[in-house]
Amino acid sequence: MTLKVHFKPTDIVQLADVKNASRSIRPYIHRTPVLTCQTLDRMVGHNLFFKCENLQKTGAFKFRGAVNAVSQLSEAELAKGVVTHSSGNHAAALARAAQIFGTEAHIVMPSSASTIKRKAVIEYGGRVIECEPNLESRLEYAERVQSETGATMIPPFNDVRIIAGQGTAALEFLQQVPNLDLMVAPIGGGGLISGTCVTTAATSLRCKVIGAEPEGADDAFRSKEALKLLPQTNPQTISDGLLTSMGKLTWPYVRDIVRQVVTVSDQETVSAMKLFLERTKVLIEPSSAVALAAVISPKLMNVGHDRNIGIIISGGNVDLDNLPW
Amino acid sequence: MTLKVHFKPTDIVQLADVKNASRSIRPYIHRTPVLTCQTLDRMVGHNLFFKCENLQKTGAFKFRGAVNAVSQLSEAELAKGVVTHSSGNHAAALARAAQIFGTEAHIVMPSSASTIKRKAVIEYGGRVIECEPNLESRLEYAERVQSETGATMIPPFNDVRIIAGQGTAALEFLQQVPNLDLMVAPIGGGGLISGTCVTTAATSLRCKVIGAEPEGADDAFRSKEALKLLPQTNPQTISDGLLTSMGKLTWPYVRDIVRQVVTVSDQETVSAMKLFLERTKVLIEPSSAVALAAVISPKLMNVGHDRNIGIIISGGNVDLDNLPW
Repeated sequence: MTLKVHFKPTDIVQLADVKNASRSIRPYIHRTPVLTCQTLDRMVGHNLFFKCENLQKTGAFKFRGAVNAVSQLSEAELAKGVVTHSSGNHAAALARAAQIFGTEAHIVMPSSASTIKRKAVIEYGGRVIECEPNLESRLEYAERVQSETGATMIPPFNDVRIIAGQGTAALEFLQQVPNLDLMVAPIGGGGLISGTCVTTAATSLRCKVIGAEPEGADDAFRSKEALKLLPQTNPQTISDGLLTSMGKLTWPYVRDIVRQVVTVSDQETVSAMKLFLERTKVLIEPSSAVALAAVISPKLMNVGHDRNIGIIISGGNVDLDNLPW
Repeated sequence: MTLKVHFKPTDIVQLADVKNASRSIRPYIHRTPVLTCQTLDRMVGHNLFFKCENLQKTGAFKFRGAVNAVSQLSEAELAKGVVTHSSGNHAAALARAAQIFGTEAHIVMPSSASTIKRKAVIEYGGRVIECEPNLESRLEYAERVQSETGATMIPPFNDVRIIAGQGTAALEFLQQVPNLDLMVAPIGGGGLISGTCVTTAATSLRCKVIGAEPEGADDAFRSKEALKLLPQTNPQTISDGLLTSMGKLTWPYVRDIVRQVVTVSDQETVSAMKLFLERTKVLIEPSSAVALAAVISPKLMNVGHDRNIGIIISGGNVDLDNLPW
């Protein structure tokens, strides 16, 4: 199956949208720190800068997009709540964003979602609606909630408000470290990488964007090779934030602006996650370790030595009782 | 067995020694950040500030004392090297300090020491000398190395240079957060708590010092109850940095300046370690989690509500393949 898409990146989200998002969300988010580690630098022969969105509220960059989307709702819309289907970080992020803006969040989650993810949503005051663990059931339940409540759908990535919100991470990052040569981010649905492309293409002449993907969920890699959007079927990876296919609004960024998509094995991901925790003492989730693994990977295109490489650490929500090693 | 000691705290180390140490070590150490976490604050009803010595070079506050001690050696002494016996963070810290000052570090380690601890010493260029896993053998080997090489002994805690160096953590901490009501640190040999007492007693009118200990290695608690220095025999705890007895130079601080020693079970320690990692995404070792567990413990003396509580996170060196949960 091939999806036809006709968007150019510049048709979708502009730098002005990201800057507006940055202003809207500023009162609610952490300006996350940038971490460096001399030992890791020595190991890879570059200067690595880690934008710690794992230290963002709700433990992931997803909070930026969710807050930006909810902050744009009218009073009338806020009175009716928001709805999404997600088993991961977007669910918790939307629940918390809704809580801040005093509206209800209906979160459709598959029955297979981990207890820890459900607990997070409930902790932030969200209402969990359980569905079957497949996309059809998720969509069906979400639509039913929408029609019953009039709630506004806030999708996890294929949405201009979400992409603009996620682009604020790269905006801060380039303010904190202006002379980056590369910016590396993981690709799941593509919201983060798209926002990163918007910001980077518009504000840095030198900085290239690299995407990172698990070998077992490599739709971005395959799509870029084929020059057409190929969906992800039957993903197999421990990086639970990167299972989904890209959307028609995020694929054009991967197609036209991302310089390379580097795929890594789950083993490389686990090694990177452990290495990072051991050396920096900071916990990152597998979906983030994929980006560090990509920088370590021999598959990364030749970028020379001693480059300034920025890595967006997308999240740190890990079930400590089920570590992947 | 009771050891007689006659020192007053003010006879041992003065604030001037800590300030001198601070100047000496500044080029070599990290000024570690202070971390806060709203969720933890809500849980305990206080404002918690964490001084992250787990982010210190070599992953522990021990580097401060080691650098301070080595920095005071003469050229002639440096030519002959340094020696210590340690199975833990002091070993790696001394190896790295010696490397910086271009001298050799002979580290006597028990054969039972973990591979990861040995690797750290070797990575920093230290020479590991294996001994039997008991105190007699450690002392015997260390003395033999001393007599063979003329190396200077740098003990892990019972040493004024070490105590002054460790006191620099609290000095920075009170600069970063001047209005602390309490400062909490773990007690092993007592180097960290003693340095903390020197600094805090001399620079803050309001800030009290609290010690934290595992129930299975509670020599400071028992000594303070008995008002005499009782050694630790047969310690049983996962907090491998807190196994040792206090020394005659550190006990007077616990006796006279520490307001309370709170003991916690290993189960409380593991819960605190997991809670901290889950909420802040930052890895701390069990010996540090003891201090957080003490603040959570119902045994902590009544300090009221909404206090500013500083916790010195002593280290973050954890064997990720042998997590204590």
